[in-house]
Amino acid sequence: MNSLLKFEIEKQTFDAQGVARARVGRITLPGSLGREHEVETPIFMPVGTQGTVKAMSPGDLEGMNARIILGNTYHLYLRPGHARVERLGELHRFMNWKGPILTDSGGFQVFSLAGLNQIDDEGVTFQSHIDGSKHRFTPELSMEIQRGLGSDIVMAFDQCPPYPATPEQVRAAMSRTVRWAERGLAVPLKPHQMRFGIVQGGLYEDLRVESARDICAMPFDGFAIGGLSIGESPDLMQKMARFTAPLLPVSRPRYLMGVGRPEDLVEGVRAGVDMFDCVMPTRNARNGTLFTSRGKVNIKNARYADDPGPLDPECPCETCTQYSRAYLRHLHVAGEALSARLNTLHNLTYYLRLMEQMRAAIRENRFDDWVESFYTVSNAQRYQ
Amino acid sequence: MNSLLKFEIEKQTFDAQGVARARVGRITLPGSLGREHEVETPIFMPVGTQGTVKAMSPGDLEGMNARIILGNTYHLYLRPGHARVERLGELHRFMNWKGPILTDSGGFQVFSLAGLNQIDDEGVTFQSHIDGSKHRFTPELSMEIQRGLGSDIVMAFDQCPPYPATPEQVRAAMSRTVRWAERGLAVPLKPHQMRFGIVQGGLYEDLRVESARDICAMPFDGFAIGGLSIGESPDLMQKMARFTAPLLPVSRPRYLMGVGRPEDLVEGVRAGVDMFDCVMPTRNARNGTLFTSRGKVNIKNARYADDPGPLDPECPCETCTQYSRAYLRHLHVAGEALSARLNTLHNLTYYLRLMEQMRAAIRENRFDDWVESFYTVSNAQRYQ
Repeated sequence: MNSLLKFEIEKQTFDAQGVARARVGRITLPGSLGREHEVETPIFMPVGTQGTVKAMSPGDLEGMNARIILGNTYHLYLRPGHARVERLGELHRFMNWKGPILTDSGGFQVFSLAGLNQIDDEGVTFQSHIDGSKHRFTPELSMEIQRGLGSDIVMAFDQCPPYPATPEQVRAAMSRTVRWAERGLAVPLKPHQMRFGIVQGGLYEDLRVESARDICAMPFDGFAIGGLSIGESPDLMQKMARFTAPLLPVSRPRYLMGVGRPEDLVEGVRAGVDMFDCVMPTRNARNGTLFTSRGKVNIKNARYADDPGPLDPECPCETCTQYSRAYLRHLHVAGEALSARLNTLHNLTYYLRLMEQMRAAIRENRFDDWVESFYTVSNAQRYQ
Repeated sequence: MNSLLKFEIEKQTFDAQGVARARVGRITLPGSLGREHEVETPIFMPVGTQGTVKAMSPGDLEGMNARIILGNTYHLYLRPGHARVERLGELHRFMNWKGPILTDSGGFQVFSLAGLNQIDDEGVTFQSHIDGSKHRFTPELSMEIQRGLGSDIVMAFDQCPPYPATPEQVRAAMSRTVRWAERGLAVPLKPHQMRFGIVQGGLYEDLRVESARDICAMPFDGFAIGGLSIGESPDLMQKMARFTAPLLPVSRPRYLMGVGRPEDLVEGVRAGVDMFDCVMPTRNARNGTLFTSRGKVNIKNARYADDPGPLDPECPCETCTQYSRAYLRHLHVAGEALSARLNTLHNLTYYLRLMEQMRAAIRENRFDDWVESFYTVSNAQRYQ
C-alpha cells in the first residue's frame, strides 16, 4: 500500500524458526506543520491522558528523550472537548508538545471507565465518569474527535471484549471491530494523520489469526495488538503477543496496546513489537513504586528514611543525580507535589532508557545477551 | 556590633519627615560551604514548608532568580526530623538547594497549626497536627532544631499573641519574647548561622516602641517585625509595619514576617523593610488565583475556557510564554499536577519580579512614580 507513514527497518532479527522478531526501525510521520517527525523503534510512549503526561512538562519529556506521546480521546472529548482543543490549535499547540502524538479511539475507556455502557452495532452509549452525563460514541465520532485533536496517529474504534470471554463473545467483538474499522476508514482525516488498525481475538490463537487477516487487509498505516493486558496473567499476555506479532505485516509498525511492565516490554520487543504505551510508569510513580536497574523500589518503605544514596545509581535522570532516597521518601510521605514529579521523571526515564538499550543491543547483534542480563540483574520475573 | 552578616545599603530614600525608608541593599551571608551567599534586598523569600517549595524544583527556583528561601522548623522537626536532616547533610543538601535558607522558629506554627497547646514561661507543649503526638518546644530546642537544619538565618523563638489581644496580653507575650530571645542567644549555633530577633507589640504603638527597644539592644544580626498579618485589616497591618520599620536599626536587614499580598510588599518596601515571606503566591497558585501585571486572575473562571492568550503578557516565565489561559484553566479544572506547578512558577515569578522592579526603581530615584503606576495598573487596593 501507499502510505505517508514511512517505516524503515534498520536491523532485523529472526528466531530459531526463522520468524522475523525483534527489530530496530524508524517511523517517519508527515507532521502537521510541514515538519516531519522521526521516531526510532522500538519505542515507549508516555501516556498524556488529559492533555498532559501527569506531573510532567513538555520540557521534562524532551529532556528524557520522549519522542512520541499518547493522548486519550475519551478524556479529551469530555474535557475540555475536542472542538475547543481544535480551535486552540489542536492538541500539539494546546499542550505545547512539539513531537508526534498518538490518540487512542476512546473505546477502551468507554468500556472500562465510563458508567453503564450499552453497546450495539452502531456504537456505544455511556455515562461520563465526571458528571454522569449521557454520551454516544460511534466509529465516525471517534474519527471526528481524533481529527479535531489533530493527532499524528489515529487509532481505529474497536470493541475490546472483557477478560475472560468465550470464543463466541470474542468473535462477535471481532466482527464488530472489522465493521467499525471500515466505517472509520470512510471518515476523512487531516492530511498529516496516519491510521492504525487494531487486531482483536482475545486469548484464542485461531481468532487472532482470523482478526489479523481481516484487519491487516485494510489500508491502515500501522497495526496494533489490542485486547491484551486486561486481566489475564502476564504469561498468557506475553504468549499471545508473541503469537500475534508475526501475524502483522513486517513492513508496518506494530503497536502492543496498554503494555506494560518492563519485562513485558522486553518480551514484546523480542516478539517483534515496535511501539508500547502504558500508565504503569506514571501511575506507579505517584504511588511511590519506582523501577530501577536493580529491581523495584517502594520508596514509602521506612528502610529508605536515612538512605543517602541515589534511587538508581545507573540512571542519569535529575531524580537520581540530584536527590537521595531519603529525600524522595520524605517527599512521598509528606504528600508533596514534587514527589510525583521526581518519581515520574525517573520512571519514564527508566522506561525510555530500557527501549534505548534494547535498540542498541539489537543494532549490535547482542540482543539475546542483553535479555539474559536484564533478567539477571533487574529482578524481573521470566515466563515461557 | 560585630556581625558576620554584612549588610550594605546601596541606595536609601527618605520620607517627607526625613525618616529613612525604602532602600536597596545587599546581604552577604558567610555560607556553610566556605561559599558566601549574596542577596539583594528588598527580597521576597518563597516558603519551603516541608523541605520543598510546593510544586517547585530547586531548578525552577533558580530559573526565576529566587535567592533565598524559607524552611519551617515546626514541620521539619515533626517530619522528617531535624536530626535526620542533619545526618543527611543539613537542609541545603537534603533538598538540593544551593542558596541561603532562613528557618522560622516554629513558634508561629505551634500556636496556629498544632492541636491544643499550652504555653508557660519555659516553653510550649503542643500536639502534632499529623498524628496528635505530644511535643514541647522551648527556646533552646528551637535553636537546636535550627542548628540541626543548618539554615543560614535562624529566627528567635518568640510568642506571637493572637489577634485581637489586649495590651496586657500583648505585653505579657512581649516580655516572654525578650526572655526567650536571651535564652536562645545562649545556645551556640554553627559558625555560618546568623540570628534574627523578632519585635512584637501587636497593634499598639507604645508596645512596638518598647519591644523594638528591648530586642534591638540584643546582639542579633537582623531584626524582624512579627505579630502582623494574623487577622487584622490590611490597612492596620500596613500602618503598623510603617510605624515599626524605623524603630529597627537602619544598618541591619529588616524582615516583615508572613507578609503578604503584592500591595503589602509595596507598602512594606516603602516603609523601609528589606525581606518578606508569605505562602500567598504558592498557596493561591494551587487554588487557581494568579497574580498578573493587570490584577488577579481566577483561572477557574469559565471565561478563560477558550482564551488563547497568555496569562500575563508582560511576564517572561514559562507559564506565560508557553501556554494559553485556556490550557491553564483546563489543567486546573482537570485537577492535573502540572496546574499547581505552572501556576506556582508564575506567581513566584510575579512576586520576585515585583521586588526586582522595586529595587530598580529605588536605584533609579523613581520609586514614588513606580508605586503610583503600580496602583494604577495592578488593580491593587490602596490604603492610608
